Amino acid sequence: MSREIRLNAFEMNCIGHQSPGLWRHPDDRSADYHTLEYWTDLATILERGRFDGLFLADVLGTYDVYGGNADAALRNAIQVPVNDPLMPISAMAAVTRHLGFGVTATLSYEPPFTFARRMSTLDHLTRGRIGWNIVTGYLDSAARGQGRERQTAHDDRYDLAEEYMEVVYRLWEGSWEDDAVLRDKERGIFADPAKIHKVSFEGRHYRVDAIHLCEPSPQRTPVLYQAGSSTKGRAFAARHAECVFVSGPSAGVIAKRVASIRALAAEAGRDPAAIRIFSLATLIPGETDAEASAKLADYRRFVSEEGALVLFSGWTGIDLARFRPDEVVEHVRTEAGHAALENITVADPAKRWTVGEVAAWGGIGGIGPVIAGTPARIADWMEEWIEATGVDGFNLAYALAHRTFSDVADLVVPELTRRGRYKQEYRAGTLRTKLGGPDSGRPGEGHPAAAFRR
Amino acid sequence: MSREIRLNAFEMNCIGHQSPGLWRHPDDRSADYHTLEYWTDLATILERGRFDGLFLADVLGTYDVYGGNADAALRNAIQVPVNDPLMPISAMAAVTRHLGFGVTATLSYEPPFTFARRMSTLDHLTRGRIGWNIVTGYLDSAARGQGRERQTAHDDRYDLAEEYMEVVYRLWEGSWEDDAVLRDKERGIFADPAKIHKVSFEGRHYRVDAIHLCEPSPQRTPVLYQAGSSTKGRAFAARHAECVFVSGPSAGVIAKRVASIRALAAEAGRDPAAIRIFSLATLIPGETDAEASAKLADYRRFVSEEGALVLFSGWTGIDLARFRPDEVVEHVRTEAGHAALENITVADPAKRWTVGEVAAWGGIGGIGPVIAGTPARIADWMEEWIEATGVDGFNLAYALAHRTFSDVADLVVPELTRRGRYKQEYRAGTLRTKLGGPDSGRPGEGHPAAAFRR
Repeated sequence: MSREIRLNAFEMNCIGHQSPGLWRHPDDRSADYHTLEYWTDLATILERGRFDGLFLADVLGTYDVYGGNADAALRNAIQVPVNDPLMPISAMAAVTRHLGFGVTATLSYEPPFTFARRMSTLDHLTRGRIGWNIVTGYLDSAARGQGRERQTAHDDRYDLAEEYMEVVYRLWEGSWEDDAVLRDKERGIFADPAKIHKVSFEGRHYRVDAIHLCEPSPQRTPVLYQAGSSTKGRAFAARHAECVFVSGPSAGVIAKRVASIRALAAEAGRDPAAIRIFSLATLIPGETDAEASAKLADYRRFVSEEGALVLFSGWTGIDLARFRPDEVVEHVRTEAGHAALENITVADPAKRWTVGEVAAWGGIGGIGPVIAGTPARIADWMEEWIEATGVDGFNLAYALAHRTFSDVADLVVPELTRRGRYKQEYRAGTLRTKLGGPDSGRPGEGHPAAAFRR
Repeated sequence: MSREIRLNAFEMNCIGHQSPGLWRHPDDRSADYHTLEYWTDLATILERGRFDGLFLADVLGTYDVYGGNADAALRNAIQVPVNDPLMPISAMAAVTRHLGFGVTATLSYEPPFTFARRMSTLDHLTRGRIGWNIVTGYLDSAARGQGRERQTAHDDRYDLAEEYMEVVYRLWEGSWEDDAVLRDKERGIFADPAKIHKVSFEGRHYRVDAIHLCEPSPQRTPVLYQAGSSTKGRAFAARHAECVFVSGPSAGVIAKRVASIRALAAEAGRDPAAIRIFSLATLIPGETDAEASAKLADYRRFVSEEGALVLFSGWTGIDLARFRPDEVVEHVRTEAGHAALENITVADPAKRWTVGEVAAWGGIGGIGPVIAGTPARIADWMEEWIEATGVDGFNLAYALAHRTFSDVADLVVPELTRRGRYKQEYRAGTLRTKLGGPDSGRPGEGHPAAAFRR
């Protein structure tokens, strides 16, 4: 087939995720995020649509920049309450066979020794379908939950992250040799201690002197995801990430980022084409263009503009409550001395965006494009976007849970399949293998994890 | 009915748990501990037997006292490898409706803010069936995994634990008022920020300044389990625990502990009868006594005596590799200046136990009694044991996974039910309610958690 288009579903253990206010829509299920059925139904839908993975975002704090407190976030359920994303995974794994799970964990608040065990356990239980989205945290409110005044400075967080990665690579890759486990019932030998090694590491931030507590899992190192867009973040992603999420409103913006990530990966000695890059989008398919447009218009009626401003304030650090809805964003940016709203305004650079328009625009699917139309129109758009940007596929947000994803599975996926741009069936093997990685399921030779193998 | 007998299953995300070497038996499944089916099948069996709960032990280190290293533990798979016990829970919850899950988490290595979220998430997903076995850790090897020379001194661990409990109680009970969540789609108000409160806590060990990230779950505070047997440990249990596990080889030993726990609870202002106490036992039922005895004899052939000594060395801190198998334990105790083997020798105090006999004796089900016989004989024994000790039920170890538990479910439970000593069906409500707690599912008024409610 022509170059395959890959799909990830973008979700979070909370209400509305990227679509503030839409939990009020009668067809939305996201207010049931705290039930098991919400997650097992979602996983079933995604596997029906042969999605590569479910990507679970996370935060450990509240969006409290807007208005200087979390009141608006709580009133509108803007990513709060937010439950632990790791907990529903085994239930989802039990109702699927192929779907991957890319789960966000903030390394700043997870000791590496126990975190490595957690991931290995999930890799075992899912039979090699686990991924980890490496984040260092971006909300000061999360740091306060952990008893700190504020989060570690941005660049220091990435230094800490580098050391953290070395510790977990050593545990995952270097502690148990491939043939350490014998499971020999006759001789009564489970494992050969000579082939199991303590990780003795003493760094600036972390110390470990112990074996990894888990026997080797199918992938050992989980598939690594990253979404950093800063200079340090991109360098980190180029070194470690196997999947990268990018978001932005125009193909031009995305194309530049994709080129930069692939160039940095090549500089880091990795095959730039082996990195899977997914860009954020929201797809609203309908039988006819008119039906799809009507659907989107219906959804838009439920957007909470206050909720959208809460999100943008959290992402940018600018308290948008300090500005009138009709104020143009250019003023906001100037006054705040911050270019963070650029993402939005490049969607139509000629336009003089107001704060209110930014809110309305970003009220569905965050800062990615929202495409409504027939499956054919959407597939056209997807093919063009991939051509223009060089991404491997899409990280799809939902407008309505689970309606948006089931519409994609049932309408868009068949169209992409007909066009020869989508897998007829899942590839065998681990998530890493399904994503085009080695048949072994292990990180490829150019990846830094491989250096810690024995 | 007469006083109900309650059953818990005692398990661990590892091989063989309390029965070293029995993973080699052809009917044992414990070497499949790393698969999802192992756990979903187990949960299904236990719910068929109307067990109150599945209790999951955990360690974060290796048993490396025996011989001065972890070699024998690794060779015999003695609680290593050991996977994360939290991860399979949602899958088990998805195939059951009533079974409770009591999961061990070592507070020394879990920051309270994220741990509180993890438990709340599981309480939501299980609809109020989660419990937490509070441990402070007992292996120095676990501390070394976390970059410390050794674990915190025993008494200091309990001081830290008291502070930890206050933090998590504040998060679970005090952050969100009962009527904070409105889910009002009409008015677009998810929650009322005026009824959601930051926990601002500054203690010796922990600082938090944040709201709890989860909306109230059915139980809020998970059902609290404890198994501490030291003076500090028993005082802690008397104050916090709703379920207590005790273990010992004779009814006399257990009776004393039970009386002590209930007396301490009364001193702490709690209803002593409200604490559910479970004592360790292993039941091997058969159609006839002869069949049961033959079954047990068959199992004993698979015991790894080295494995048993690894366990005993880890529990007592005495390296039993330094003694010959025919050496009498009295010498060991004298030389090691340690009374920790007392537990075993009181099973038959007149006997001169050798190291080898202790290993053989403890090779099935740890230091609890092992009872083989017809369901009637076993039920007789259970009734007598409860009468003699004052426990509420049993924490059942397995000889073979899952054979031992399915034998109990299919043979012993019907006999207990016939005798009117076992529930005909599960009580409605949360795990706490099923265990005899308040219908609300929340900790009762005498419990320290209740003090942090608004």
